[in-house]
Amino acid sequence: MTQLLDDTFLCEPPKSLVLSEGFAFKHGDRVAPFTIVYETYGELNADRSNAVLVCHALSPGAHCAGKYTPEDAKAGWWDGMVGYGKGIDLATLFVVCVNFPGSPWGSTAPRTVDPTTGTPYGSRYPWVTVEDMVESQRLVADHLGISVWKAVVGNSLGGMQALMWAALHHERIGGVISLAASASVPVASVAWHLIGRKLIQSDPAFRGGDYYTSTEPLRGLQLARMVAHMTYLSNEALESKFGRRRRGSTRQFEVDSYLEYQGSKFASSYDANSYIRVQAAMDEMDLDEQFGSLAAAFARVRSKALLISFDTDWLFPTNEVERVHAALRAAGVDATHIVVSTPNGHDAFMIDYHLITPPVRSFLAAL
Amino acid sequence: MTQLLDDTFLCEPPKSLVLSEGFAFKHGDRVAPFTIVYETYGELNADRSNAVLVCHALSPGAHCAGKYTPEDAKAGWWDGMVGYGKGIDLATLFVVCVNFPGSPWGSTAPRTVDPTTGTPYGSRYPWVTVEDMVESQRLVADHLGISVWKAVVGNSLGGMQALMWAALHHERIGGVISLAASASVPVASVAWHLIGRKLIQSDPAFRGGDYYTSTEPLRGLQLARMVAHMTYLSNEALESKFGRRRRGSTRQFEVDSYLEYQGSKFASSYDANSYIRVQAAMDEMDLDEQFGSLAAAFARVRSKALLISFDTDWLFPTNEVERVHAALRAAGVDATHIVVSTPNGHDAFMIDYHLITPPVRSFLAAL
Repeated sequence: MTQLLDDTFLCEPPKSLVLSEGFAFKHGDRVAPFTIVYETYGELNADRSNAVLVCHALSPGAHCAGKYTPEDAKAGWWDGMVGYGKGIDLATLFVVCVNFPGSPWGSTAPRTVDPTTGTPYGSRYPWVTVEDMVESQRLVADHLGISVWKAVVGNSLGGMQALMWAALHHERIGGVISLAASASVPVASVAWHLIGRKLIQSDPAFRGGDYYTSTEPLRGLQLARMVAHMTYLSNEALESKFGRRRRGSTRQFEVDSYLEYQGSKFASSYDANSYIRVQAAMDEMDLDEQFGSLAAAFARVRSKALLISFDTDWLFPTNEVERVHAALRAAGVDATHIVVSTPNGHDAFMIDYHLITPPVRSFLAAL
Repeated sequence: MTQLLDDTFLCEPPKSLVLSEGFAFKHGDRVAPFTIVYETYGELNADRSNAVLVCHALSPGAHCAGKYTPEDAKAGWWDGMVGYGKGIDLATLFVVCVNFPGSPWGSTAPRTVDPTTGTPYGSRYPWVTVEDMVESQRLVADHLGISVWKAVVGNSLGGMQALMWAALHHERIGGVISLAASASVPVASVAWHLIGRKLIQSDPAFRGGDYYTSTEPLRGLQLARMVAHMTYLSNEALESKFGRRRRGSTRQFEVDSYLEYQGSKFASSYDANSYIRVQAAMDEMDLDEQFGSLAAAFARVRSKALLISFDTDWLFPTNEVERVHAALRAAGVDATHIVVSTPNGHDAFMIDYHLITPPVRSFLAAL
């Protein structure tokens, strides 16, 4: 019995899967005990065939839809897509969203206190990979008794996880939906990411990652977020939102005040150690390198695939997404690539619901 | 009697114009005494009608062509264009290049010791404007007895100075050549510049600009330069130069090592106080704002104008340059806008000499 609110619904609180033996990271480290936080929405059907995995991106966590209480200021980060009567329709689908290792939103993270030392992991927290993210989701799937996801869906880094699912666990997915993502981060975006990480690591307050008992490297994280935020915006959006306008009667550019606001808002809630790890994982993923070629990565995929790119997204330009599409087609996959025309750049996946809902809904209906 | 070298020529050492009464900055400050460093190449003719002013951009100084000695590792920064038999041909033209106020290359700058205090100006050095740059060039013109420049030529910030010359001193110029520049910096580039300045100002070693007696804010300046360098490169160049390739047998991306190299090279010679001032001057210039409209800024211009933009330059995109072109045409100016197709982005003005030399040569010949 789900309570519907005006535009959303009342969801259950986050759930935890506690691994007392710990989580084994791809690079060889094990962190124990390890908690994986996840959320579920809707009802798993009797034959467990209606489960959709939503993979989150760098910034958000497992709370992808609904409100915990009617008084919550905001619903989950993809509430425009996941809900009753929405593109990923909870009337028929069961949705799972897992907070991946490294992220600061509940699962064991660099900020978590290591019970063996009594201090946060900090610099000792492992360097995460996209495979680790997929592994955390696989563990939750096993825990819930879901042997095959009807679909694995994600945006940006979440879309990269969806592609990694296809490459690693082709037998466990019925469909892949990847928005604003490709099989690796193109060099221009890698370079901006690297610069962002340098900004954090150059903040003297960072102290190599062991800053939890002193001042946190907020300015470094703010600056890194400003750089990242620029890569999320299209030139069109910058021109129409700000142009060269000044703030009130001051000489400060409006875009300056906006970037400072975005930087501060992010830095006050995220964590620098998480940021550099999650972003590095994104940059390190490279299905060509890992499997020898994209063709090899997708050779055994038999699920359908829907790729959506945005013509003003320059973090993952349309031609990069088309490269993934061509490789999937060459591997015999029933894959569709839709290029959405929008001024909203990379962030369009959280803005242009009227454009992305119809293809997502149709794709899921046809599975 | 000029000595020609293999690809260049032997130039005279820099000259100085010393203003004992000081230089009056647009914002009201006066710095006295004030030295303006400039270089000249070729011979001024009897009626002083063959003088061309070359305006330099953010990074370089007055040394735009030739070598001081045959052993110099490098010739001046625009030696591909300025020289005997080159696009700006010293066989017939007299070229002047002035190091503008604020730049660290010889003219009185933030690093200069203030004789009244015995310490560098540092934070007390004024905030510079493009009008101040033009004024320093006007003072040199008067000093040399040049009442009319045959042409004023510049790239990037130098091209902005050329447009400012047209707006402020239309009666003193016969032609304007502006490459990779427009009448104001578009918002995307302003935002990247702002982020760069924040990186310098966030370096604790910056100490508000008074760092000359302690550690200099090298890391902040390096990081700012990495950000700037990214805006000079096209995505095409990033892909072809680096792609996602790693450095040797390491996991370091080649683009990472390249950006660190560029950042270090720049920071070891430039000065942080100069950088933030010169870049802010660039961002503050806005002929629309200053004159009410571009049409008003160019209303009295009667010189010819040549605008060259590069299709992969996203610091000054082609459509911004076309806006200047349209305004010049509307003002009755005989103006041409050439869009050069190149993978080299903003820096094409120092790379694609085979593409920019013919139009520059023809334009000067027709004056």
